[in-house]
Amino acid sequence: MRIDLNCDLGESFGAWAMGADEAVMPAISSANIACGFHAGDPSVIRWTLRLARHHGVAVGAHPGFPDLAGFGRRDMHIAPSEVEDLVLYQVCALAGMAAAEGLTLSHVKPHGALYTMAARDESLADAVARGVAVADPRLVLFGLPGSKLLDAGNAHGLRVAAEGFADRAYERDGSLRSRRLPGAVITDRDTVVARALQMVAHRTVSTVDGETLPLVVDTICVHGDTPGAADLAHAMRAALTAQGVRIAPPDGREA
Amino acid sequence: MRIDLNCDLGESFGAWAMGADEAVMPAISSANIACGFHAGDPSVIRWTLRLARHHGVAVGAHPGFPDLAGFGRRDMHIAPSEVEDLVLYQVCALAGMAAAEGLTLSHVKPHGALYTMAARDESLADAVARGVAVADPRLVLFGLPGSKLLDAGNAHGLRVAAEGFADRAYERDGSLRSRRLPGAVITDRDTVVARALQMVAHRTVSTVDGETLPLVVDTICVHGDTPGAADLAHAMRAALTAQGVRIAPPDGREA
Amino acid sequence: MRIDLNCDLGESFGAWAMGADEAVMPAISSANIACGFHAGDPSVIRWTLRLARHHGVAVGAHPGFPDLAGFGRRDMHIAPSEVEDLVLYQVCALAGMAAAEGLTLSHVKPHGALYTMAARDESLADAVARGVAVADPRLVLFGLPGSKLLDAGNAHGLRVAAEGFADRAYERDGSLRSRRLPGAVITDRDTVVARALQMVAHRTVSTVDGETLPLVVDTICVHGDTPGAADLAHAMRAALTAQGVRIAPPDGREA
Amino acid sequence: MRIDLNCDLGESFGAWAMGADEAVMPAISSANIACGFHAGDPSVIRWTLRLARHHGVAVGAHPGFPDLAGFGRRDMHIAPSEVEDLVLYQVCALAGMAAAEGLTLSHVKPHGALYTMAARDESLADAVARGVAVADPRLVLFGLPGSKLLDAGNAHGLRVAAEGFADRAYERDGSLRSRRLPGAVITDRDTVVARALQMVAHRTVSTVDGETLPLVVDTICVHGDTPGAADLAHAMRAALTAQGVRIAPPDGREA
Repeated sequence: MRIDLNCDLGESFGAWAMGADEAVMPAISSANIACGFHAGDPSVIRWTLRLARHHGVAVGAHPGFPDLAGFGRRDMHIAPSEVEDLVLYQVCALAGMAAAEGLTLSHVKPHGALYTMAARDESLADAVARGVAVADPRLVLFGLPGSKLLDAGNAHGLRVAAEGFADRAYERDGSLRSRRLPGAVITDRDTVVARALQMVAHRTVSTVDGETLPLVVDTICVHGDTPGAADLAHAMRAALTAQGVRIAPPDGREA
Repeated sequence: MRIDLNCDLGESFGAWAMGADEAVMPAISSANIACGFHAGDPSVIRWTLRLARHHGVAVGAHPGFPDLAGFGRRDMHIAPSEVEDLVLYQVCALAGMAAAEGLTLSHVKPHGALYTMAARDESLADAVARGVAVADPRLVLFGLPGSKLLDAGNAHGLRVAAEGFADRAYERDGSLRSRRLPGAVITDRDTVVARALQMVAHRTVSTVDGETLPLVVDTICVHGDTPGAADLAHAMRAALTAQGVRIAPPDGREA
Repeated sequence: MRIDLNCDLGESFGAWAMGADEAVMPAISSANIACGFHAGDPSVIRWTLRLARHHGVAVGAHPGFPDLAGFGRRDMHIAPSEVEDLVLYQVCALAGMAAAEGLTLSHVKPHGALYTMAARDESLADAVARGVAVADPRLVLFGLPGSKLLDAGNAHGLRVAAEGFADRAYERDGSLRSRRLPGAVITDRDTVVARALQMVAHRTVSTVDGETLPLVVDTICVHGDTPGAADLAHAMRAALTAQGVRIAPPDGREA
Repeated sequence: MRIDLNCDLGESFGAWAMGADEAVMPAISSANIACGFHAGDPSVIRWTLRLARHHGVAVGAHPGFPDLAGFGRRDMHIAPSEVEDLVLYQVCALAGMAAAEGLTLSHVKPHGALYTMAARDESLADAVARGVAVADPRLVLFGLPGSKLLDAGNAHGLRVAAEGFADRAYERDGSLRSRRLPGAVITDRDTVVARALQMVAHRTVSTVDGETLPLVVDTICVHGDTPGAADLAHAMRAALTAQGVRIAPPDGREA
């Protein structure tokens, strides 16, 4: 058994710090690095690349909407051709900076509203996938299982990795429970670790209704923006490793 | 005889248009493309790369200070390590996007205040050259003849190209006359063309005092932001070609 | 008979020019001045205020989404409380700068996507109206006739002005024809002028289907971003004046 | 005896938090609120105004250079007329928002590089003072004692307040020791409190050389961006109060 643990990192900006990057990095196998549009700046990016290199963590681009004030979390209706270009730009900036640090960019995970919008909007998903494929067809595209984004990745010849969230509640239809609803985020450490194990060992997830749904994921997202987040990531890694699960970046596959 | 004609292009931003890119492009051999920090956006960059490809013009990155409101023309005192990073970021974004369009980035010319500050400030020049060299040591660095920037380029193993300005007045010490002083910009077409010919054929320039100074340049900058600019560029190209001068991107050399 | 002619002005930004402000200003009675979020900067704002003062034109704030790259034309899903705050901020900046130039801000017209979203989204309309009312309850709020925005303005005690578009096609239901559809924009000068006269004299508009709909407007928008726009604005003013229509800022009324 | 304690607050931006505003606010008498150019956003500004109102703290505008990435700490060479306009814009936005919260803006303290550049550059100081005076001539302008900024404030009819720093070392000439030099910042709580008392009771400061210089200040800056900062501010307030010093916003005076 094998799973990837990924985390959004490099989300500081100028004088503003965010995230516990140094604490989280040793626990994960894939770092999604903000590219400067929703968070991150050139010096933060470079520092984060070096930190990932030090810990042998695979690096990916984490492109977002051009919305610093909203941290890329606000839906923006941008023409698909412009989305393609802004994904391409951000991925190229990261890929080049990674190369300058002796690293090869391994994957791309869209950020925030770009991720959730591209999960359900076919033309946006197509735009994101095209931007990634044009930048480098060897990149693995991260997205929700069954999403338009992973379909589009495959359509453009990319390998994809399906992502699960051990600390987020799932609805009966397999979608993530909205953050606006109670119980959307699971904070109890043992519960989160147990859910991660269930995803990897049984390829299922328990829904808010108590049902068990099939859920096949290649990578599990751990959060890095709270103090407890790093502890949780390390606990998840330890529990998975104790069960004989290997923590490694995903090779990617067809959706 | 041979000379490069370069122009700053791709300086539109979102809904705001700037420059006569389509009119100028056929006249030049090197396009310096804004990278999104002082001007340009991902879609403008891509459009400009395609235009350059169509006309067989060499493409370069034109990185600037992060100052949209000031168009990168205002001196900013940024720590050298951060300047290195922001040059690296911008060059990587351009290089990757050029590759996505089947082009190879050929050169880097810093923009505006970054260009003039790096001409005289050794640590800033070093930062810019390092950012370029780390991105790709095969890039040719454009700068003023005798500048700290070209020295730094060489120190970091880059080939460099010395740049002249046919439409700008030169002081007795070989520096460009400040735009704040009268006569700094030469607008008469025949005079500008004659000065370009003089730079190429005689390797000299006439100063505001009427003296003749030696001036060895590899590339001449033409401006693209006024309606008459494109005509001037074409006139310069025609006059140089008529004198048997070949218009081609610079191979670069040691300063 | 009386009508207001309004135009979006002050949409230049730094080195980028937009609009024919000097040519349009003498033709209109209300200037909607960009506030720096989608366009405009402090120096552009001040210059535009002085231009309006010189021509005796009423000044209004033209707040937009924080989206320079998209010129405020892209739908953004921002929480209503944050929309209220960003409208308040922009209106206050304009109101204070107007006062510094000896002017009193007379009205507010939301820009681009903020305008069209607030026309149909009740909570967004409420947020915009609240931001305006908190800034100054004497301001007149411009919006589409029958829109949620005008309703919200009244609910918050504001006077409102219904806006018509002489150069835009109307659908059978009284809505503006989408710019994505053919015939959305009317460019023939005589037709546009005739439509303006019809709006003022007959309080009707002809739809794309050739029907005649009632349409009561207090202000007609003229565009200022094309060379011909200024001519059109002057032609409209001349034709209206010749028919005995007085061109003046709206007093505002209940929706 | 009487002194003002001021602190820079409202420096969060979107998703990025900065400062211990809630802990510091009860200790101070004047809050300098960031205006959105170097830090702060409309919602942060409004929240900070309400916090100040709750604690009965006087509110001021804290305008800075348009440099989010550099937090307004980097010297920027902006034309004085543009500096005047961007100060005017920021002060008007804050003044209007304060009024919307039932408060009256009491003072202006330029931020970071704008503050230090305006201390020594006469034309910049003049631009800042003019922007403030045009916004509202009743505002008190904060600046270094003996600075060009306070001179310019007086020249434009403003009252001024001279600011001291209890936790910063002073050079023999009365200037602040550069942060790049060792010993520039004093972190020992008792020492800082003693220096504040000395400034108020004796109107002197001890320099790095151990000399005692006269230093007349109307307001002392306390820092709010570190966890210990709030404790220090409260300790300073308690010690001053215990000595019979009244903590209150400055009335302002001639420099």
